[in-house]
Amino acid sequence: MGSSFRMEPVGVVRLEGEKAHIEIYPPYIDALLGLEDFSHLMVFWWFHQNDTPEKRATLRVHPRKDPANPLRGVFATHAPMRPNLVALSFCRNLSIVKSRIFIDGIDAFDGTPVIDIKPYIPVEDLAPEGVSVPDWV
Amino acid sequence: MGSSFRMEPVGVVRLEGEKAHIEIYPPYIDALLGLEDFSHLMVFWWFHQNDTPEKRATLRVHPRKDPANPLRGVFATHAPMRPNLVALSFCRNLSIVKSRIFIDGIDAFDGTPVIDIKPYIPVEDLAPEGVSVPDWV
Repeated sequence: MGSSFRMEPVGVVRLEGEKAHIEIYPPYIDALLGLEDFSHLMVFWWFHQNDTPEKRATLRVHPRKDPANPLRGVFATHAPMRPNLVALSFCRNLSIVKSRIFIDGIDAFDGTPVIDIKPYIPVEDLAPEGVSVPDWV
Repeated sequence: MGSSFRMEPVGVVRLEGEKAHIEIYPPYIDALLGLEDFSHLMVFWWFHQNDTPEKRATLRVHPRKDPANPLRGVFATHAPMRPNLVALSFCRNLSIVKSRIFIDGIDAFDGTPVIDIKPYIPVEDLAPEGVSVPDWV
């Protein structure tokens, strides 16, 4: 089943009141060049509070912790418990000042480790009218 | 700057001619329950061929390896060289048979390790008319 992979945080989520930004760590600041040209970003982060063997072994959940939702495999949900604790948020890119990327908000905690940033480039196939999801969503 | 994180592959990309599927490894098959209800998936994989210290230390590239494109930080591109080698593909979910997720295609190699699967749920803010990208895209 192959070897394991190692990741180092490249930054951290910072929340202050209603303001949110990503603080990129000094060794990675050069990787930001040109990011200001994109209106939207994909922020990849790590559900670090769930980085335990037990939570990573959780394969089925009731989505949104609501027992009224059907039991589902974690790959069929965005649940914060999954074998690899990768999280993804789509954010509006408000401004970039040195090491800080100011965004419109993010569903993460202050102090959450960030593992990657990519620009959001529209995907043709994903127009909402062509996408189907189950009722519980 | 925090500790590092460890990931195990949960599956592998399989390409045969024009057909593509994700083979999920036996310990993770239970995590697929309900995935068949979604038309589109986000497949997270690892640029494993670039998992060297040199490539992970590459912070700026000419996008698409085209010297005519401006030098850009890797966080402003989808380049396969970046500090954490996380890749994301949006795929159409054609069918799921036991451990296999058949998809319409993926920009990865046969044998590429898969690290996570999430359903694609439309994001309201991402209508193409509201998203801006630079000319080189």
